[in-house]
Amino acid sequence: MTIESTIIEMAKAAKTASVKMARCSCQKKNEVLLNLAEKIEANAAFIQKENEKDLIRGKEMGLSDAMIDRLTVKDSTIKSMAEGLREVAQLEDPVGAVTKTWTRPNGLQVSRMRIPLGVIGIIYESRPNVTIDAAGLCFKAGNAVILRGGSEALYSNQALADIISKALIETGLPEKAVQVVPVRDREAVNILLAQEEFIDLIIPRGGEGLIRFVVENSKIPVLKHYKGVCHLYVDKSADIDMAKDICINSKAQRPGVCNALETLLVNREIAETFLKAMELPFAKAGIEIRGCTETCKILLNAKQAEEADWYAEYLDLILAVKIVDNMEQAIDHMTLYGSAHTEAIVTSDYNRARRFVREMDSSVVLVNASTRFNDGGQLGLGAEIGISTSKLHAFGPMGIEELTTTKFVVFGNGQVRE
Amino acid sequence: MTIESTIIEMAKAAKTASVKMARCSCQKKNEVLLNLAEKIEANAAFIQKENEKDLIRGKEMGLSDAMIDRLTVKDSTIKSMAEGLREVAQLEDPVGAVTKTWTRPNGLQVSRMRIPLGVIGIIYESRPNVTIDAAGLCFKAGNAVILRGGSEALYSNQALADIISKALIETGLPEKAVQVVPVRDREAVNILLAQEEFIDLIIPRGGEGLIRFVVENSKIPVLKHYKGVCHLYVDKSADIDMAKDICINSKAQRPGVCNALETLLVNREIAETFLKAMELPFAKAGIEIRGCTETCKILLNAKQAEEADWYAEYLDLILAVKIVDNMEQAIDHMTLYGSAHTEAIVTSDYNRARRFVREMDSSVVLVNASTRFNDGGQLGLGAEIGISTSKLHAFGPMGIEELTTTKFVVFGNGQVRE
Repeated sequence: MTIESTIIEMAKAAKTASVKMARCSCQKKNEVLLNLAEKIEANAAFIQKENEKDLIRGKEMGLSDAMIDRLTVKDSTIKSMAEGLREVAQLEDPVGAVTKTWTRPNGLQVSRMRIPLGVIGIIYESRPNVTIDAAGLCFKAGNAVILRGGSEALYSNQALADIISKALIETGLPEKAVQVVPVRDREAVNILLAQEEFIDLIIPRGGEGLIRFVVENSKIPVLKHYKGVCHLYVDKSADIDMAKDICINSKAQRPGVCNALETLLVNREIAETFLKAMELPFAKAGIEIRGCTETCKILLNAKQAEEADWYAEYLDLILAVKIVDNMEQAIDHMTLYGSAHTEAIVTSDYNRARRFVREMDSSVVLVNASTRFNDGGQLGLGAEIGISTSKLHAFGPMGIEELTTTKFVVFGNGQVRE
Repeated sequence: MTIESTIIEMAKAAKTASVKMARCSCQKKNEVLLNLAEKIEANAAFIQKENEKDLIRGKEMGLSDAMIDRLTVKDSTIKSMAEGLREVAQLEDPVGAVTKTWTRPNGLQVSRMRIPLGVIGIIYESRPNVTIDAAGLCFKAGNAVILRGGSEALYSNQALADIISKALIETGLPEKAVQVVPVRDREAVNILLAQEEFIDLIIPRGGEGLIRFVVENSKIPVLKHYKGVCHLYVDKSADIDMAKDICINSKAQRPGVCNALETLLVNREIAETFLKAMELPFAKAGIEIRGCTETCKILLNAKQAEEADWYAEYLDLILAVKIVDNMEQAIDHMTLYGSAHTEAIVTSDYNRARRFVREMDSSVVLVNASTRFNDGGQLGLGAEIGISTSKLHAFGPMGIEELTTTKFVVFGNGQVRE
């Protein structure tokens, strides 16, 4: 079989499986998830043995230490995959829920009922645990899934695929409800992205390069975010201690993730007080400052920021700082340089808080809280499949509900149109 | 200016206007809509004079009578455009509505707030009234709009664009919030479909050819339906009189529209009784029957259906009829040949009604009601912008809410992540 026919067969089989999945009871789905969790723990040695093959190959190919680290299935990775599945089993099943009902003057009873999206393709990079995390959530929402992991993780992903198949078969669900692309060639991705007849949604997870590649080549709708250039605006009415804590937490609690702070904007009236107060905390946290000219006059260790700094997603202990005249200027800056991912304000002023949440066009807008809260778990959605910064279908963290849609259900007793 | 630079300028201007539109009060938006309604009535003579130029050109180019009819701005067209705008002004403004609020254990108050999508591009065929209807609804939802009508309607659409501009300027809203593409060349569509940086959504309205062209060439998400191959299944427990009325209404009340019935499926146990009872109503309504072999034995005037008939969207007084063993077979047929647009059942059986709405994967699923109810107005959504048969973002009729999305708004009092 050619790569093309392999992928097309997978896509067709997923479509067929998705019809059965849509009708599958919550209980059956949970059985699979719990069975799979057990199997992953029971087969830890097998998974790690296969993972070892990927690691050996990866080292031969000269992968960086960071890449090797992400590729490694540790004991803790096994544990977290199994626990993740058990948590997903706990989530309420969104399928079949009636989200709204109303009655028309002619007596028709109209409602919207939640249904799965159908077939979801996930394209991701090295971490093998994504195979389990993403598959589990899509599956619980009643979808069939096709997973295409990084080519460097193929042995590990195939091992996980074998275990998933067994769990599906044992529970009497369609084996093809979860499939892993079995080839390394990049061509497979292009073919996958062309199967709009069978696949309803593509979710890419990884670096900006991967995501841009997927968006440019996909004929299927894609939910994604390119990057998180997150902002914090410290208003003149801000509680300085609160602003300090939120700023350091947003930047330094975990600098390598998409909801970490990248640019701090400070109101001119409090700039000197606030930035002076930040000098020590910045130094203690090891944060390098790239400031506007005025910032550099206050923070003498700061480097002069260049235009590129305002667009930068550092993912590192570096922070761009700019002094602005007012909230309008701050919002304009965020709109121009930001990525519509996460924007926060620290303020004690009621009207500005109200205007900021209304006017700031971003997937998550926060008042007096850390940018690090843009996360499905933190916001109470349960497990998340990622964050969307495009507005269609989902904007912000995507939980299990975002993996479904609604249809209209109409109950009548003989109504016809006049 | 080249066509390319013209279109890119329009897209950029729309993006800028969309930021102001998102912050615009409901009152201001309604002012524009009502002002525009008045202006359309007051400038009827001007609009019709410009429309006459399109009609003369259209006749010279040999457009069919049906095309000329759709292109004509009659007195009733003027009236219906103005009334449509007044109805849209009455619709509740979805922007700013908080659709859900919850509190996290750490005290964070999280909510989802409705916001406009941003910039919407509408690509449509001859009817100039779409210019007003589509623009009005997108505008009320707080979006900027770029309209690209049929090249044969350019004079009419330009006339309407002039009037829209005046209404926007008089109310102090950005003139570029609603723009009409001022050139005939098809190249303009291709360039428009590439502006993913500035345009958030494309809605094509017209025949299947236009829609396929748009989907294949767009880098921007597209909401659309290709066709409506709508089904009615008459269950063995059906009330025969009710089934008769629903069948005739679904097929014949307006056969040229997407929610008209195209294929009738009848349970074998009542096939003879029901189809015999339909013989006269079918004849009276002038409906031609294309039946399966068994149907042809009952309805002697029926033609033998070919495989292509099961896929057909006749949009005419023709009906495909097939006899099936049970509901499962009916659902399988609808899934295989249907378009996920509208599927109905007539039944008196509680369990089958329940299973049909659960298992039938279609944008609108009806029990004991005509397929003709798949319509935003009929289902109580108010004015509609079209029907979607793809599942992402919207599935089924799309009203004003489907022209918005939600962002997360988080209120804290200093929360940081542990």
